[in-house]
Amino acid sequence: MIEYRGEVVLKENERIDDLERNGYGIIQRNDGFCFGMDAVLLSGFASVKAGGTAVDLGTGTGIIPILLEAKTKGAEFYGLEIQPEMAEMASRSVRLNALSDKVHIIEGDIKAVSAKAGDRDAENAAFTEVMAKLKGRVDTVTSNPPYMKDSHGLKNPDDFKQISRHEVKCDLTDVCRAASLLLKNGGHFYMVHRPLRLPEIITKLKAVGLEPKRIKPVYPYVDREANMILIDAVKGAREECRFEKPIIVYKEPGVYTDEIYDIYGY
Amino acid sequence: MIEYRGEVVLKENERIDDLERNGYGIIQRNDGFCFGMDAVLLSGFASVKAGGTAVDLGTGTGIIPILLEAKTKGAEFYGLEIQPEMAEMASRSVRLNALSDKVHIIEGDIKAVSAKAGDRDAENAAFTEVMAKLKGRVDTVTSNPPYMKDSHGLKNPDDFKQISRHEVKCDLTDVCRAASLLLKNGGHFYMVHRPLRLPEIITKLKAVGLEPKRIKPVYPYVDREANMILIDAVKGAREECRFEKPIIVYKEPGVYTDEIYDIYGY
Repeated sequence: MIEYRGEVVLKENERIDDLERNGYGIIQRNDGFCFGMDAVLLSGFASVKAGGTAVDLGTGTGIIPILLEAKTKGAEFYGLEIQPEMAEMASRSVRLNALSDKVHIIEGDIKAVSAKAGDRDAENAAFTEVMAKLKGRVDTVTSNPPYMKDSHGLKNPDDFKQISRHEVKCDLTDVCRAASLLLKNGGHFYMVHRPLRLPEIITKLKAVGLEPKRIKPVYPYVDREANMILIDAVKGAREECRFEKPIIVYKEPGVYTDEIYDIYGY
Repeated sequence: MIEYRGEVVLKENERIDDLERNGYGIIQRNDGFCFGMDAVLLSGFASVKAGGTAVDLGTGTGIIPILLEAKTKGAEFYGLEIQPEMAEMASRSVRLNALSDKVHIIEGDIKAVSAKAGDRDAENAAFTEVMAKLKGRVDTVTSNPPYMKDSHGLKNPDDFKQISRHEVKCDLTDVCRAASLLLKNGGHFYMVHRPLRLPEIITKLKAVGLEPKRIKPVYPYVDREANMILIDAVKGAREECRFEKPIIVYKEPGVYTDEIYDIYGY
């Protein structure tokens, strides 16, 4: 049940969903890209050390920093979002849960993490300032990035759903590079993605000094192909990767396994 | 049950095990590295097209080419083995099953696949000749290579078991390079290895133009970490990888799942 602790501002075509954690709610658009199981599984897979700083790249509704605040003892949580309307909505979810002192939604382009003051990409001064402060100091970076490579032929490249699903505004290389720049040595980058792109993901992580240390496949059923993959890569770590027990989502059609109920917090 | 179709020559300290396929048997040393589930799962995962040519790198007892001959409609099967005693024993297994016209055990160093006549590595003329004939013409390459990277501190680097388990005589780079040189474009390299080394495997495959297309993890139980990984990489293919349903080995302690009984041919 949602506890309305903070300020509730809902716009047209928006609703509040229950996060089933700490009485937190989240604002979503009825016509937009809603958070999926991906984000929930990622926030269950990721950890933030006590007093640590976490950054979520492409935070969308803000679900990941809000869930990580609920689940961990981290001190500061940042969500970067390039779409102004999404960033504004995520900020209202932060206020709804009275988390403004710990969770910060920053509007900006992850490609500009490496920008310097004066660069064209550094026009957003607030963003540039926060990034300069965070670079090389972050304990945990998370990302549930757009999965789809193929962005040609998109009808409306400014559509919220398209930007969340397709690599319109940034690609896997941009996400990995930003994660590596933000993390301190030994810091963790947790990502959820499609198994189809695993070889590319591994190559691109290693290219920026992020070593894959844990891979956890998610199977809809035990006898199907995996449809998600959770990856934990550590900056500057040595080459050795654990292949964890799989997450199986459904016991039978419509019935989640106990593990999924557990991650969702029911 | 083994059908003794060919010539049986057993040396001291050797035995014949039943392969449960086509009445084939295999000679193994009581004190050596015996084939494991790895080799059996790899031969179930690999395929050889009708009339095709297959090469197994580091064939040991020769189990993989012998099983692939039983399971596929391939025409020619080669097993490369660096240890003379192992190669000689594998050749006797080939004769035991009366397969000398289709299965060829070649003694030689996989590092010498790229050797030219006159090179130090090309001293074995028979090996060099066969390799020259096969290069760029093979449909399927398989390997169950040594899993362990760390070979320092080995007591006896000539020990059969050490050579089969540790990268004493060749490493992952040598195996991937030889596979790529032997394969035709579009040919498949099937490998079984440890999940711990998956990121390195993917990087090294891609570096020699072998694109991982299928990954299949093997879990001892559904709630444990994976302990083997099967990989199918295709020469010159585009980047896109399927993450197949896992193989679960045991239903309960001592009881295989149906899938394992099926792969073993019981």
